[in-house]
Amino acid sequence: MTLIESAKQNQVRKEFEEVAKYEQVSVDFIMKGVASGEIVIPKNINRSLKIIRAVGKGLKTKINANIGTSPDHISIKEEIEKMNIAVKYGADAVMDLSTGGNLVNMRKEILEKSPVMVGTVPIYQVASQTVRAKKKITQMDSEMMFDVVEQQAQEGVDFMTIHCGVICETVAMLDRQPRLMGVVSRGGSFLVKWIKANKRENPYYEQYDRLLKIAKKYDITLSLGDGFRPGGNPDASDGPQLAELSILGELALRARKEGVQVMIEGPGHIPLDQIQSNVILAKRLTHNSPLYFLGPIVTDVAPGYDHISSAIGGAIAASYGVDFICYVTPSEHLRLPNVNDVKEGVIAARIAAHSADIVKNINGAKQWDYEMSKYRKERNWEKQKELALDPLKVEQERAKITPKLEDTCSMCGEFCSMREENENS
Amino acid sequence: MTLIESAKQNQVRKEFEEVAKYEQVSVDFIMKGVASGEIVIPKNINRSLKIIRAVGKGLKTKINANIGTSPDHISIKEEIEKMNIAVKYGADAVMDLSTGGNLVNMRKEILEKSPVMVGTVPIYQVASQTVRAKKKITQMDSEMMFDVVEQQAQEGVDFMTIHCGVICETVAMLDRQPRLMGVVSRGGSFLVKWIKANKRENPYYEQYDRLLKIAKKYDITLSLGDGFRPGGNPDASDGPQLAELSILGELALRARKEGVQVMIEGPGHIPLDQIQSNVILAKRLTHNSPLYFLGPIVTDVAPGYDHISSAIGGAIAASYGVDFICYVTPSEHLRLPNVNDVKEGVIAARIAAHSADIVKNINGAKQWDYEMSKYRKERNWEKQKELALDPLKVEQERAKITPKLEDTCSMCGEFCSMREENENS
Repeated sequence: MTLIESAKQNQVRKEFEEVAKYEQVSVDFIMKGVASGEIVIPKNINRSLKIIRAVGKGLKTKINANIGTSPDHISIKEEIEKMNIAVKYGADAVMDLSTGGNLVNMRKEILEKSPVMVGTVPIYQVASQTVRAKKKITQMDSEMMFDVVEQQAQEGVDFMTIHCGVICETVAMLDRQPRLMGVVSRGGSFLVKWIKANKRENPYYEQYDRLLKIAKKYDITLSLGDGFRPGGNPDASDGPQLAELSILGELALRARKEGVQVMIEGPGHIPLDQIQSNVILAKRLTHNSPLYFLGPIVTDVAPGYDHISSAIGGAIAASYGVDFICYVTPSEHLRLPNVNDVKEGVIAARIAAHSADIVKNINGAKQWDYEMSKYRKERNWEKQKELALDPLKVEQERAKITPKLEDTCSMCGEFCSMREENENS
Repeated sequence: MTLIESAKQNQVRKEFEEVAKYEQVSVDFIMKGVASGEIVIPKNINRSLKIIRAVGKGLKTKINANIGTSPDHISIKEEIEKMNIAVKYGADAVMDLSTGGNLVNMRKEILEKSPVMVGTVPIYQVASQTVRAKKKITQMDSEMMFDVVEQQAQEGVDFMTIHCGVICETVAMLDRQPRLMGVVSRGGSFLVKWIKANKRENPYYEQYDRLLKIAKKYDITLSLGDGFRPGGNPDASDGPQLAELSILGELALRARKEGVQVMIEGPGHIPLDQIQSNVILAKRLTHNSPLYFLGPIVTDVAPGYDHISSAIGGAIAASYGVDFICYVTPSEHLRLPNVNDVKEGVIAARIAAHSADIVKNINGAKQWDYEMSKYRKERNWEKQKELALDPLKVEQERAKITPKLEDTCSMCGEFCSMREENENS
């Protein structure tokens, strides 16, 4: 039985207990959420997952780190390092988005070594195999699309991005409503090209029941991809984006009915004043499915610092109900991230997620800030370090300009406003 | 005549013309804003200012970089370097918050070399002189408080933070409504101690007319300081903070009437869901004065990354109407910032300010993003670099993992979704 089926039949499972304990909520709360589809627990039946996490309503906002090779840079060792640093700094999930080198080996390593849930985008492997066979993307084989999903499911992948909403209907709408950036989702763009060239429907949509059957067999959580997410502020919240979202909502209901967990992916690039409505509409159109947003980035002018542009959007989106944030690293829009970028990206995403959790009233979130503030007031630097998102950073930075009085910092020194017993007073 | 008086009497001045040109608005729009007090143009009559900027309603969100020595680290050279890098990366103002070394020389250098407006907090000099004379902060001389303001005004300081709302009434309220962090504003804490020890009213409040007279003489813009700003999320939006704000509103009206420009400072540390109401209330209570916010930081758990926590809050605050953002650097809460921290802080603040300007419909803001997106779509890397907030960063980062195909980046390489003419298609 899949987790959603167990929850519907009110059968307690260790996964429910484990996530309930982590979230400090009742097992019943988790099971009701899973049964209704408002909470998902991505975990393949073939995986022994050290850290099981739930994503959805009432729970801590989770974050994902994308790793993986590209055709231009291939090193399994480096990707494993990225995975390790992502997990160390608090990633709740990693996605292997590899498109270069031996994809199967890469994924095998990640699945073996990752203590957290692992996601993939199977169409990348399909595209890669197609191109390596000297064929074009438009010649991707529809049978291979399902074979790869089954292969990756068997290997233990916990959740998969499938762009089921890139269909004839939405592609036609995109043609009628042109946008500045076109389709920026990699998987989405493969499927758009395929649909147009072959004048055929997206196999993942046309044979959605077949996809559900595989997902059910391995209890894969489907992450319905946003192939039409805006690639720049000017394209945000347009017709194709919302049409796709509404189709993903239909598919979410069908998945739930079939006993398959589903979450919905979201943009992307959204200006500040459209984030709230994007989140509210996404929850509405997808029947309160867990939302998995990439960013959103609130301005396009700061390449090199897109982890910041994205933390701004992510914090706001999560505060309005987004459940799962995909990090953006400082190297976004410039190159494949390196290990340090992964660290910076994870930390920025965690700042966004946690600042939202404070206002979502997530258990323990306010308390964390309270304690940090208390120790700051007490000028207890050891405790501040311990509580910090990145304790090593606190130590290193503080050491760069040390204070003369050890209970202060070198910003204010003897004039520290926190020192009640200030000898200057 | 001060700028506000000229504006009230409908006399065009070159300052109005200059800022109107920069903002791409009419001179009339600027003059009406200055006359009503909704816009300020900080510029001392004794300064020849290369770059004149206005702050307020309908204008580009401005950013300030705090620089200056502390008792623990004193280097005029380094502070000038900080000023230069801040201006290079787009700071519209710098504040000299020096408390260590020769304060007069430091300020003289900054006033000489800064092309942008310079602000100070005169009470720091008062406190510093008092302590150096082997006295306690509580023994600060009330005459010296005004002498230092006059001295700095004469030297050419364009705007000054004065904590006029830290008064017997608000100090008493703070005693009745205790908070976790107490008073974290340095200037505010000096005055609280002084008021309590001397059982006397804040001289800057009691003799506010005297302060206005000096400000008027040199056309100083008063930046009414928030001595009771929250120092941690748990203290946000409490009684003392709002009582002080309401008093600052009274004082703003008095200043306008006397021909003195005034802006109002704001917090600090605010959770995501209280930022909008803080901004709306601040505008209401201060009769639509230009608002100058420090941050706000939306979580306290990420020391070492507070420029990110602050960019989140700053973007939201500015989008709801904050006009002027004081940057926060990565070293905040840990130590005095170094040159690189200043750069990182300015860039984070500019991302916040610009992402808000997009939704404030500020002239040129949307267009900047539009053009960046257009060149991204065209994979015109040279133009993307030129348009970027930090072109050098774009170049350096891109070079770290170069793409095999020069019109792509090493993230997707040959699978780039932007390549219409993709040979794989």
